Formats: sequence, C-alpha cells, structure tokens
Amino acid sequence: MSNSIGEKFQITTFGSSHGKAVGAIVDGCPANLELSIEDIQKELDKRKPGTSSVTTPRKEDDEVQILSGIFEGKTDGTPITGVVFNKNQKSKDYSMFKNTPRPSHGDYGWMMKYGNYDYNGGGRGSGRVTIGHVIGGAIAKKLLKTQDIEIISHVTQIGDVKAEPQDFKAIKENIDKNPVRCADLKAAAEMEELILTKKQEGDSVGGIVETIAIGVPEGLGEPVFERLDGDLARILMNIGAVKGVEIGLGFDVVNHTCSEINDAFQIEDDKVITKSNNSGGIIGGMSNGMPIVSRIAVKPTPSISKCQDSVNLERMENEKIEIKGRHDPCICPRVTVVAESSTAIVLADHMIRSGFIHPNNLEKK
Amino acid sequence: MSNSIGEKFQITTFGSSHGKAVGAIVDGCPANLELSIEDIQKELDKRKPGTSSVTTPRKEDDEVQILSGIFEGKTDGTPITGVVFNKNQKSKDYSMFKNTPRPSHGDYGWMMKYGNYDYNGGGRGSGRVTIGHVIGGAIAKKLLKTQDIEIISHVTQIGDVKAEPQDFKAIKENIDKNPVRCADLKAAAEMEELILTKKQEGDSVGGIVETIAIGVPEGLGEPVFERLDGDLARILMNIGAVKGVEIGLGFDVVNHTCSEINDAFQIEDDKVITKSNNSGGIIGGMSNGMPIVSRIAVKPTPSISKCQDSVNLERMENEKIEIKGRHDPCICPRVTVVAESSTAIVLADHMIRSGFIHPNNLEKK
Amino acid sequence: MSNSIGEKFQITTFGSSHGKAVGAIVDGCPANLELSIEDIQKELDKRKPGTSSVTTPRKEDDEVQILSGIFEGKTDGTPITGVVFNKNQKSKDYSMFKNTPRPSHGDYGWMMKYGNYDYNGGGRGSGRVTIGHVIGGAIAKKLLKTQDIEIISHVTQIGDVKAEPQDFKAIKENIDKNPVRCADLKAAAEMEELILTKKQEGDSVGGIVETIAIGVPEGLGEPVFERLDGDLARILMNIGAVKGVEIGLGFDVVNHTCSEINDAFQIEDDKVITKSNNSGGIIGGMSNGMPIVSRIAVKPTPSISKCQDSVNLERMENEKIEIKGRHDPCICPRVTVVAESSTAIVLADHMIRSGFIHPNNLEKK
Amino acid sequence: MSNSIGEKFQITTFGSSHGKAVGAIVDGCPANLELSIEDIQKELDKRKPGTSSVTTPRKEDDEVQILSGIFEGKTDGTPITGVVFNKNQKSKDYSMFKNTPRPSHGDYGWMMKYGNYDYNGGGRGSGRVTIGHVIGGAIAKKLLKTQDIEIISHVTQIGDVKAEPQDFKAIKENIDKNPVRCADLKAAAEMEELILTKKQEGDSVGGIVETIAIGVPEGLGEPVFERLDGDLARILMNIGAVKGVEIGLGFDVVNHTCSEINDAFQIEDDKVITKSNNSGGIIGGMSNGMPIVSRIAVKPTPSISKCQDSVNLERMENEKIEIKGRHDPCICPRVTVVAESSTAIVLADHMIRSGFIHPNNLEKK
Repeated sequence: MSNSIGEKFQITTFGSSHGKAVGAIVDGCPANLELSIEDIQKELDKRKPGTSSVTTPRKEDDEVQILSGIFEGKTDGTPITGVVFNKNQKSKDYSMFKNTPRPSHGDYGWMMKYGNYDYNGGGRGSGRVTIGHVIGGAIAKKLLKTQDIEIISHVTQIGDVKAEPQDFKAIKENIDKNPVRCADLKAAAEMEELILTKKQEGDSVGGIVETIAIGVPEGLGEPVFERLDGDLARILMNIGAVKGVEIGLGFDVVNHTCSEINDAFQIEDDKVITKSNNSGGIIGGMSNGMPIVSRIAVKPTPSISKCQDSVNLERMENEKIEIKGRHDPCICPRVTVVAESSTAIVLADHMIRSGFIHPNNLEKK
Repeated sequence: MSNSIGEKFQITTFGSSHGKAVGAIVDGCPANLELSIEDIQKELDKRKPGTSSVTTPRKEDDEVQILSGIFEGKTDGTPITGVVFNKNQKSKDYSMFKNTPRPSHGDYGWMMKYGNYDYNGGGRGSGRVTIGHVIGGAIAKKLLKTQDIEIISHVTQIGDVKAEPQDFKAIKENIDKNPVRCADLKAAAEMEELILTKKQEGDSVGGIVETIAIGVPEGLGEPVFERLDGDLARILMNIGAVKGVEIGLGFDVVNHTCSEINDAFQIEDDKVITKSNNSGGIIGGMSNGMPIVSRIAVKPTPSISKCQDSVNLERMENEKIEIKGRHDPCICPRVTVVAESSTAIVLADHMIRSGFIHPNNLEKK
Repeated sequence: MSNSIGEKFQITTFGSSHGKAVGAIVDGCPANLELSIEDIQKELDKRKPGTSSVTTPRKEDDEVQILSGIFEGKTDGTPITGVVFNKNQKSKDYSMFKNTPRPSHGDYGWMMKYGNYDYNGGGRGSGRVTIGHVIGGAIAKKLLKTQDIEIISHVTQIGDVKAEPQDFKAIKENIDKNPVRCADLKAAAEMEELILTKKQEGDSVGGIVETIAIGVPEGLGEPVFERLDGDLARILMNIGAVKGVEIGLGFDVVNHTCSEINDAFQIEDDKVITKSNNSGGIIGGMSNGMPIVSRIAVKPTPSISKCQDSVNLERMENEKIEIKGRHDPCICPRVTVVAESSTAIVLADHMIRSGFIHPNNLEKK
Repeated sequence: MSNSIGEKFQITTFGSSHGKAVGAIVDGCPANLELSIEDIQKELDKRKPGTSSVTTPRKEDDEVQILSGIFEGKTDGTPITGVVFNKNQKSKDYSMFKNTPRPSHGDYGWMMKYGNYDYNGGGRGSGRVTIGHVIGGAIAKKLLKTQDIEIISHVTQIGDVKAEPQDFKAIKENIDKNPVRCADLKAAAEMEELILTKKQEGDSVGGIVETIAIGVPEGLGEPVFERLDGDLARILMNIGAVKGVEIGLGFDVVNHTCSEINDAFQIEDDKVITKSNNSGGIIGGMSNGMPIVSRIAVKPTPSISKCQDSVNLERMENEKIEIKGRHDPCICPRVTVVAESSTAIVLADHMIRSGFIHPNNLEKK
C-alpha cells in the first residue's frame, strides 16, 4: 500500500494539508515501552514552521493527540495512533492551482493519477504530511534509546557553503544553537545569510543533510534485497525534495582507489572494529557495528514567488503561475527531523526483524 | 523476506557462488508475453566475466534453463523459474577466509548474522547472485517493451575520467563498441587505460553508472511511501558496491537556486511536457512522462591483490589477508546490466501496480 | 503487521474498548468513489448493541467521523480515516480481571504475549474493535456496488433451530424484520425464543451465519496461495467467536459422491454457468461467476453470568470468576454485519488485484 | 504474489504437472538447522501416488534435489531451493481439455483469468504442485522439532464412516498401518472398503482430515488480523478440494451452550492449562499452550470416469466430457501430508514472528 512503510515496526500515515487532520498509526511497537505525548510533541516542535528567520513565518500549532496504543504510561503492543487536527482548513483560496500544476511540485502527478486532487496547500503532497513521519520517528527513537542507539541529523551544506566535520557530541550540542541546524557554527552563520539573501530575491536554495546513528549492533539488514542501505535509501529518497542519497563516502568513492578506502579490520578492546568508516557502517547490506552515516541532497523548495511557466490542464493551454504566500526559502533545517525520523523508523524495524528487540514485549528477550 | 523484491512483479533469487546453482523465480508476470530462453541468455551474456580486458579473466559459462512458467512460447501467468547451474563448485581453496573476513566485503556481516557462512567465493554475497537480478530484469524488459518502454545503463565516469553527455540513440549504439560500456568513445578509451593501470598496480577503481528509461507514462509510483524514486533508490542501492544513488540533477541541486532548476511545463503536440528534466522524470514520487534518469556511485571492487589488515574471528587476533585470484579491476561495466535489470524490475512492477499492464493477462486491458 | 488486512484495498484498525477511540484507515480505495459519512454510519448502526431483545441492552452511541480521504464528496485516493470516539471510558471497574483471565476469552493470550494488557472491557480484544471492520466494509461495499456486486449475511441457525433456505431477494427483505437477522421468519421467532431462554438461564448460545455475494465476475483469486476461498476463510475465521468456515457445500461434501455434487457446466444466454453451485462460486481458488456462498460457525458468547473456574496469574492459584454485566446472549445477529464487511473487504481487494477495478481512479479502465 | 505464503518463514512454489519441474524456495529458515535431502524425501514419499489400493495406480517417482541453502549439512540462512524434475512430460494427450473445462476443477478459472493455460494434467492446477507444499512443510517440521513441536494429520471420516477418537500416540502409531491413514484401525478397514466400492462405480468419495500439533507455546498469532486460526484456515482452505475448515469444536459449537463448552482454567504442575480443549488450542487468535486441533472437509476427487456435462469455450456450445485415466477414488489419505505440511509452515512462521525462534540463526536466542 502506498501509505505504509516498515515490516515489523510499521507506520501508516494519513491526512492532508487542509483536511481535518494529519497523523500516523504505528503498528508493531512492542509492549512495555514507556511513552508519553511529550515524547512525540517535542519532535513535532522541531519540524514546526514559524520558529526562525530561515523558515516560513507561517504558524502551525501542531498539537498531537494519542488515540490508542498506550496503557498506564506504556505501550501495550496495540497500534499507536497519533493525530494532529488542522487549524487552518479555510485559510486561503487555492483555486488558481486547481487545473494549473506548480512546476517541480507533485501536483501534476496527483492530478493525472487520481483525477480528484485536493489542491489546497498541496493536499496530501504537502510537507505537512511529514507530521506522520515524525510521529512514527519519535516512537522509533524512544524504542531505539532502550538499546542505546542514538540518531542525529544535521545540515552540512547550503548552496556552496560547506560545514567542517564535527564529532557526534559537538553536533548534538551545536545544532540547537542556530536556525540552520548546522553543527559548524561559523558555517551556520554564512548559511543563514545565504538563505536570507535568496529569500529576498524571491528564490530558494538547497543543501545537504547528514544523519549519523551510533550504537547500532552488527547484523541489521538482509544481505540481498532487504538490505539496510537499500531500505535507508528508499525511506530517505521518499522524503519530498530529496534527489540523492549516499552512504559513507558516497559519490566520493569515484575519487579513490580501493586500497585508499577499504575499511581494514582490527581488534580493539576485544571487539572487532574497522580503522576507517568509509563504508558508513554498512557492508554487504548489513550493519557492521560502526556509526551509520548517510547524506541526502535536498533541492531548493520548489515554491517561489517568481512567475513561472505552467499549463492549464483543462484548457490545455500554456499559462503563467505565481505562487503567493510565505514559503520556506530553504527546507533543509526542517528536513533534519524528518531524516532523523525516517532513519529511526528503518532502524527500529530492522532491530525487531533481526531479533535484537522482541517483537511483542520489550521485557522479553 | 530477504530474497524477494517487488509487489506485483516479484523476483525471488537463490543460490550462491560455489553452490549447485543460482537463479530466480519471477512471480507475477502476466500471461501471454512471448518469452524464450534467448531473451534471458542474451542479457546474462552481458554480465558474464572474461569477455574483455577490463573485467576478470575468470570464465563463467552461464547457461540458463527455464524450469516453469512458459507454455507454447508464451508466459502463462505462473511463476517463471530460471536456473544457472554452477560449473566451478570445486575450483579453489577458500579456507583462509573461513574466519578472516575480507575488508569492505560482506563476509563479516554474514559470519556474525548467520553463523554458518559459505565462504567459498563469497557464497551468496558474491556478485554471481546478480544472475538472479538479470534473469528477472530480462523478463521485465521484455514486458516493458510491449509498452514501448526502453531502458539503458551506461558508464559516465571512471575515477576522474568523465564522459560527455550523449543522447539515448548514441548511448545505445556506442556502449557495445567498447569494453567500458561508455557512450563517449573518447572518454571510454581513457577509462580503459585508467582501469588497466590500476589493475597493474594490484588496485581497483570505481565510477558512475547512469540509467535512462524512456517511454514511461506519467503516474507510476505512489506519492508517499511507495514512491518511484524511493523504490528505484532502494533497488539500486541494493546492488553490491553501490554507495550512492541520485535522480535527475541529484547532488548537483545544491549548486542551483530554485528558479534555475524548476522544470517549467509547456504544451507540445497536445501533450504536457517539461522544458527541462532536472527532476529526472520523477516529481512527488511519481513519473511525469519525461525520461527517468538515475545515477549510481560504484565503489572500487573491494577484492585487490594488495595485502590488507583483517582479524581472525576464531582466535580474535589481528591478521593480514591477501586475496589472490583474478578480480575485476573495475566492476562498473558489468554493473550496467544489473542496474538496467534492477530499473526494469521496478518499472515493470509499477506498470502493473498502476494499472497500465493487466495483472494477469497481457491481452486484457 | 497484526492490525492490517488486504493487499491493494487494505484496512488497518486501531483502538480498544475503553481507550479514547476505535477506528480504521482504509488505504487503496481508488479515487472518485462517492462516499459520505452516512454510507459508513448506516453500517455501524447495524452492529450497534442495545437495539433489540436479543442483544446486550448496553448502549453504545457510535458516531463516526472521517478525518481524511474524501475531497468534494468523493474519495481522492488518499487513506480514508474513520474514527469513533469512545464515550464510556470510565464506566466500570474491571480490576478483578487484571490477573484473572476470563475462560474462552482472549485475555490469557494478551497477558502472556504482551505483558501490558488493557483489561478494561476486553481492551483491544473486545468485540468493539469490529467497528474498524465495519468502517472498512462499508467503504468496500460502496466500491463493489459500482460493479453491481451485492453482499448479504444472514443467520441460518441458532442452537438447534435451522432456517429454511431463502432466495437472495427474500433474505434482503426479511432480515431487517426480526432481531435475529434470519430470513426465515418462522424460524426467526423460534430463534428469538431460544436466545431469550438461554439469557434467562445466564447462559448463551451460538449459531451459523451465511454470507452470499452476487455479481462477482469470474477470475478473482490467485490459484495457489492467495486463493479467494483461502482469503475468505482467513478473514472470516479472524472474527472473534468464529470456530469454523465453509464454502459452498462445506462439510456436507463428505455425505456425497463426486457424481452427485460436481457442478456441470452449461451455456445459458451465451454465458457459461454451472447447473448447480455446490462449489459456492469458487473453484480452484478462483471465482467462477456464480454466487459466492460461505458459512461460519459462531460459538456462544463466552461472557456469561455463571460462576466459572479460572486462575490468578499473579499468585498462580486457582480462582473463581464471575463476569457481571449485560452480555449478548447470542452474538450471531451482530456478527452478520461483520461477516458482510469482512467479505466485502476481501472482494474489493481482489477486484482491484485482478484488474476489474482500476487501482488509482475509478473513472479509469 | 500468488505463489508465496508466509511472512518470515516463506515458501514460494513453482512448476506444473507436465512442465520440466515442480518445486519450492523456502526463504527465511534460520541458519544452523541440520537438514538433509532425506528429511525432505521421506515426506514427499508420503504424498506419492501409486503406493496403495486406495490411491491412483499412477506412478510418480518424485526425487527431490536441493539447489541451494545448505552448507556443510546445515542451513545457512539463504533460500533453500528444492526441485523435483518431472518424468512424465509427454505421457498422454490432453488436447480434449484445451477448450473444455472439467467440472469442479480449476480449469475454467485458469482459462478465463490467464488466457494461456497449460491444460496437460491440470497444469499448475494439478495436485502435483503440492510437492512444493511438502518440501516447505518438511523443512518447517524439522525446524519445529528443535522446539519440541510435533504435528500429525490423520483421516477421521470417509463418506459416512467415522473413526473413534484416538490419542496422539495412537495416531502416530496407527496411521502408517493402513492405506487410509486413519488411526482407528477398525474404521480404517471400512473406509478402505467404501473407497474401493466407489472406485468400482467410477465415482469418488470425500472425508475429513484432522491435524493436531502438540508442544506449541502460548502466544503464537496476532490477535486481530494475523490470527493463528485465520492463518491456519487460509492455508488449509488453500489446499485444492478443501471446502471447510474448523478449529476445536468447530461447527459443533452450535450444539452447545457457553456453560457447556467454555474452557475453564486450572493450575497443573505450576502451569496454566485448560480443563477442556474445545477451543482447539487457539483463543482470541492466539495459541494458549494446549494442542492445536483443526479439521478440514475434503471433497470427493472431481476427476471421475463417468460422463459429465461441460461446454466448449471456443465454440460456446454444450459438450460432454469423459475424463479417462487413473484417478484417486479418495484423495484424503494423500491430503494428510499436505495438511501436516501446511500446518507446519504456519507454525514455523509464527514461531519466528513471535520471537520463539531467532529469525537468522537457530543458535542465537
């Protein structure tokens, strides 16, 4: 089905930008995980717009309700349903988009594929549906924490401004200190400036978001088709605006010979590790115990205020389109929490699938 | 399950490098597709090693047999089973790898995850299992051809040698003219030279493989989680040695503002097209009727003759490893047919899933 | 996952008896199906208790809300979310069941499997979760109606009282005329009397519910493992209290030889039909165009007011249990709508899977 | 897909009666299970025809080969492929069935659904495809044996001859002593006589096959849709010729009130058991630790030598049909091993899914 992902830890999302609600069902979370509304709300707050200079000033007050799945403060193994009711259902007139798809948005596909498209605010193609991802990710992260797995996503590049690499601890500390969610604070300032410039020009800019997961045991992922790298690539590429995914060295592998980048093994403290981590923690489709590192290419937000060429599908004529409104001049900072959530969902799923977490009850082994 | 991919057009592969056989079952191919052994054999011949200066001189004489699924020259809707019996089961002593995983190979994961690992020639982690992919891909391509969809993969970069872009027709004509399967013949010669240099150094080199599919109708792919880009990213990242996947502009989106790269619509011959194809034929997770363009980053073959650091897992000691044998100094040329097959499998699956091909019988609409 | 069923037309249900809400997401319903809240509410009203002498006098005022999936009065291809908020969350003290499972209820399994069991009113094991089935079934029935498929379930036996066979039209007319939902009005009166007698004795009684679907085209169901009879058997056996499922003649096949019961073919009005329908419309796992007939054995409601033997799982001691409250003395009448819904879900799913209904858009062919 | 069943322990079968081969891939069997060809061959020998007075005298010499999945005498976690090459590919002329479907066989459905039907010996609709089930079942049984789970199927009724109930030990001992595979030896003799009488009349007869699984722990099966009873009902109803499935008391529940049949709990040897097992080991969709008991209604073999009414689909005319050949006058004895296999497949799958068996490696916990 089109709105579910995951095999054992599975999320199904629903809802559209200007419908009654958006949300997610998480099915397959084992019982006995302590879980509160706050665990989910605090993640949703990270993706909320209107919180900084570099995101849309649009306010969305996203309060989540949990309709099922928690009993006496803990999950009970039944599906967990999280819902955010929309408050801006009637905010604006979107009728100019009814027959005129916005360039590089999903509108055209929705119109052709389904025939009955809720074009208000992008409908179910809106970035607002990632609220469902974040609900699922918040629960996944809580579950992974019981196994000492931590995940963090941060911005490493905006336009031509690149951040210097930072260690996990520095990333954790620094990303909340700046609106770009970049761990290199000097680069962060330049990125912010670049975004504001593009915003003033009525344009937008893209970047790169890196995600690191530490504490992942070896042996997650099936080696042929349900590989961990394949599953991560899928869920990350599924995020709107993402046009590329890489693991470890990624596309940089073309600039090296094998002898330069093979990850040699060694024993350290009676454990097998690799001296380098060019593989990004995944070899042969399976985790190898090293940090799992991915990066995604996020395109400039396709909604810009400049006039663009489109077509009227009813009259089958060329037509100009102007997308008024308050858009994100750069979506990367808000994508970080979605990338983090998506990675958490895949890891939680594989932790159960590979027998590290009991499928029904966290207290069983 | 770990060895199947696809929902309606599904392939399940089996077998290992030095076991009795490798092969695939294709389930869900509609009845009434004309299909012969030659359709499959000619694709397998493209991935066969020992055919040129830049691949391993190892000979593998891969003859496919079809055990089921064809009746009177056409598919009959039942599972199609293709098998290649291995001829080199006893060729060599691999016992030095029993407890000593090769760096940047899957060995370590297999050993830790399953405990009973057929280490001969990489077992099921061997590139030989892509015979299964190619069997599936050959059938998928034949099915797609009935809908005028064509797919081609070619090498666009090896090390630092980049090919100039070519059109679809030129790619088709040129890739068989050189061992690198690069459509820019001048670059191809340089690539071949680079590969041979690295081979002499006992090293290997990586590159980029691009895949283009033309004739794909608009509306393939589900817009949230079973997106066409996500499914392509997964199956391509699942190919051993691939560390990055991009669609359309890919990672180059960071170098452009939205106004430079948005794909404006226009009417042409009563059809809606986009003026540019920076999206690579997929927007909002759905195909938009334009050519579908992906690129993968292929790492240097991890088997090299240079001495490397590894560990003995039984004795838990550091240990040197030397991988003797005749390795591919660059796997990219042989990866092209696997990328083509993988793309074909995803497109065939989505053509059925989205109602363009009848799920049971090609003659029904 | 445990809370989803269906491949293309898929429902995922959530919620528990005394939690905040119960409901369902229907994913995969094609766009452009006219659908209103009333379409769902009228089916829910059929399963509502407190409406007759033979059901529990407990009142449940089940008003459904639709949170997503409908745009301008029609489905839009996105997931349809139906929710019923519970009103009796704090009605009663159920703490005596915390460690003492009720005999022949699911309690024991829930406790052992998940460890954290919401024992209030049976939690997610309550019959109340069939609200999710009925939401899904209501949408499935509306979809099937566009293809002239109609489904009806009726009671054919309660205890030892058996109904005389009736034709489809009579069943439709008669079942709303009596609280037992039996089409033979004379038998219905006897059934009602039997139920009321058992109720007075503090006991309960079971029966048989038959479901007939007419208008189903030939060729639904895959012939080996995703057979139509297998999928119907599963979804019907999944209904709580069901202990047997049969198709066509069912267990009565043992009383006949082949020559007595084989369904001979004949041409009628240029169509192929069978002279008899002992197969119940399914042969070789596929529908054959004849009415699809199934029957389920429904056990007596396991909640009775008589004192029963149980155990205290905390103290690991034998313990008596008395289940106070207002129970259904016979659940068969209310099961009819669940059987109808379940059958509709399977048929809708297979109509899409076999290419009779377009997977995305009802207006496409 | 139509030819796979199971989630974690999954079998995919292929092949047809008169094609090159029939077989199965078992994917998801954990590594380190000792497995030999003999483990599979001995189960196949039980379903082989031509071994007694009451089965077809047709000889099928079904020798299995294993193409993958075993390394050094143990499974290695990769897919296990079992193949039986057909020897009678050209045995007979079946062309009279090309356009004339046999009554109460799957032929008609295959013809209408797929358009290209291998009508030789029933093609993939033949009982011969259950060789795939038995390959899967043999591996499942071996896996279950490591957990002290045992499964046995036996005939309890043929026509109007009913067997007296026997205990598990007696069933195991007695079923190999008579060709009917009935544990009540006196009834077995009467059954044999009845079958031979029907055979002489050119007719056939059906019966009931019961399956008992002992040693199954509590907590297999998900309580809503992937219930153990639902999954068993599906796989058993999927067996050709089966028209009814029941668990525990089954259809007999209508003859009892709740107070007569509820399974009261008690403590015995510090374990919770139920005093009776009317539920057949499954309550609320989950196993409860008691023996799992199912029964299936098997119709008389639809192939009989008597002349029957059919139609010619090409000419759209009524046409008589005579099915020459050596048919099973009663398929029940041979169905026992298929029921046993099917039950084993479901139980093995759920043992992994519910965390009782490690998904990758039998030696891990």
